[in-house]
Amino acid sequence: MEQLIIDTSSREYPVYIGEGLLHRSAELLASVLEGKSRALIISDSNTAPLYAETVRDSLEPLLSVHIHTLQAGEHSKSLEGYDQVMTACINARLDRHSVILALGGGMVGDLAGFAAATYMRGISFVQMPTTLLAQDSSVGGKTGINHPLGKNLIGAFHQPEAVLYDTDTLASLPDKEWRSGFAEMIKHAVIKDPDLLVRLRTEVQNTEDMKKDSLKQFLKQSMTVKADIVKEDEREAGVRAFLNFGHTLGHALEKASGYKDLTHGEAVAAGMIFAMKVSNYLQYSEWDTAAETAWFKALGYPVEAPAAFEPAALVETMKSDKKARAGELTFVLAASPGKPFLANVEERDILHLLSEMKKGECRDD
Amino acid sequence: MEQLIIDTSSREYPVYIGEGLLHRSAELLASVLEGKSRALIISDSNTAPLYAETVRDSLEPLLSVHIHTLQAGEHSKSLEGYDQVMTACINARLDRHSVILALGGGMVGDLAGFAAATYMRGISFVQMPTTLLAQDSSVGGKTGINHPLGKNLIGAFHQPEAVLYDTDTLASLPDKEWRSGFAEMIKHAVIKDPDLLVRLRTEVQNTEDMKKDSLKQFLKQSMTVKADIVKEDEREAGVRAFLNFGHTLGHALEKASGYKDLTHGEAVAAGMIFAMKVSNYLQYSEWDTAAETAWFKALGYPVEAPAAFEPAALVETMKSDKKARAGELTFVLAASPGKPFLANVEERDILHLLSEMKKGECRDD
Repeated sequence: MEQLIIDTSSREYPVYIGEGLLHRSAELLASVLEGKSRALIISDSNTAPLYAETVRDSLEPLLSVHIHTLQAGEHSKSLEGYDQVMTACINARLDRHSVILALGGGMVGDLAGFAAATYMRGISFVQMPTTLLAQDSSVGGKTGINHPLGKNLIGAFHQPEAVLYDTDTLASLPDKEWRSGFAEMIKHAVIKDPDLLVRLRTEVQNTEDMKKDSLKQFLKQSMTVKADIVKEDEREAGVRAFLNFGHTLGHALEKASGYKDLTHGEAVAAGMIFAMKVSNYLQYSEWDTAAETAWFKALGYPVEAPAAFEPAALVETMKSDKKARAGELTFVLAASPGKPFLANVEERDILHLLSEMKKGECRDD
Repeated sequence: MEQLIIDTSSREYPVYIGEGLLHRSAELLASVLEGKSRALIISDSNTAPLYAETVRDSLEPLLSVHIHTLQAGEHSKSLEGYDQVMTACINARLDRHSVILALGGGMVGDLAGFAAATYMRGISFVQMPTTLLAQDSSVGGKTGINHPLGKNLIGAFHQPEAVLYDTDTLASLPDKEWRSGFAEMIKHAVIKDPDLLVRLRTEVQNTEDMKKDSLKQFLKQSMTVKADIVKEDEREAGVRAFLNFGHTLGHALEKASGYKDLTHGEAVAAGMIFAMKVSNYLQYSEWDTAAETAWFKALGYPVEAPAAFEPAALVETMKSDKKARAGELTFVLAASPGKPFLANVEERDILHLLSEMKKGECRDD
């Protein structure tokens, strides 16, 4: 088992990474659960049948445990899903000394975390991620839900009491989900761990390589990057914005594709290649975008996805990004691995680069 | 103009109390609004027609100002009202550097504050209370909305950047609302300012007395009690619970009456008399409950309200109070003015005292 400590201004908490951890929930969460009145496991219809009872069986000697199962899928991460979870909290008679256990992927973690942040003005919660993507979202205390007019527009900062990451749960993930999570690992390497980036490039050439034993080490290094940044800037007033590398265009691509065809990580992967192109175009960097594109394609990422959409529509979406200030276009760029920075970019430059990609696609047709 | 500083662990902010302050919004909020991109005034259908344009006219030289008007009434403090406000925030293109101005009574302050706490994971807001009751709720950072299964079950702690309390707005309040707010002033006096309690008893014998010039001084003293307690305990881990004096039964009465016949303060007033009776019954105190009851009746408070409801039903509601721990009955009691304390009280004692009141009412019939 690997272990990390996340140290933020509001709370310090452990991250456990390893095999078979769900069976050891009671042992690993003993100090979190001490003095707690009740627990509510929030999970989804894919995950609950596989793991919810394992967790409940482990914890029931310590306290009373309820399970609430959401319909799987991003649509549950909505005000309606939130209403449902709040009702479940009340029906389970949770009080201020209760704890919510978020068992699932990013949707479950974000929604259950927001419920914990706002039920009776805030109760404890534990992240129990079951996807590779959730290695990223489970750490750092960002919680939230979507609004029909934009993703994650409603939310709160609320740190978990612990993160229990059982890597056995990853075995059942489809390749698309492995790619989605792996993109965030690449992102962490690009913005803050050049050595990890070299190792990933050397050792991972396709989806099967992602699943090898080295994964736990990569995970620890990747989550350490996240932990270091969150420690420095819990509330996203500064360096935490670097975690948005690839996300400005990534979010716009997700929205343009109706949150269906592209996973989050796939959209971010396309966004990272684009951010490298922007960095080069503005002469901040000399990324070998051809080589990066080839590696990303080998891993299965849809790096040409932006070409499928109207540049002007993507730009409009990017202007209303949460990180944007009053209609400006803000990008995280990178001078080289480990050297990210924030830049306001001119709309015409972004339109130009997106149009180039679109023309490129037309030529390929 | 009176001025207070509220000093909490998360933020220090000013409270301005006086006449004509809404006209001076730009001057008083200058430092809050510096660097802000946009403002959204959230108000309700009673308040907005009276004051929203005054505030907008004052602020528009500084930044762009939108107004969103909710339907007046507690029913807007719901998930539906919250959804509506979040949509208004997005449509007004608020970003993380924008500010929400909560112009109205407690409903508006609580809902708009919760919106500010959770829009893009938290933006700035200013409280501009227009009722006497909101002298209490506008200070201290408690925000929230109701759930069909319970009041204020959804919420967050989020301190405003400033409180601007224009006492001219109180002139139009009906007597019922004066009484509602005055009850919280009595509560502050009981738990922490015996001198204020003496002055209130001496100088205020009926509703008209509440409206005299001494009000601003009383308000400052009352809000100082709140400020001192919030400073000591922002997150309600300790002494802040004393602010709940009269509220355990008060909340149950509000619920039992369907949130219609009793205002919050009226229910709290009845709850305070009851808490004094509980304190006496358990031999913690020697309140002259006959004299207190006579004063409360002269002020117009429905101190016999508990007799109208089934004791067992009231007890069930009190057990599920947010402050309760796993089904216990927790009361704030007071040994004497300025000496509050928390106590777990036996269900049979509460049932006994409520039944006595009910019998008393039957005899009167």
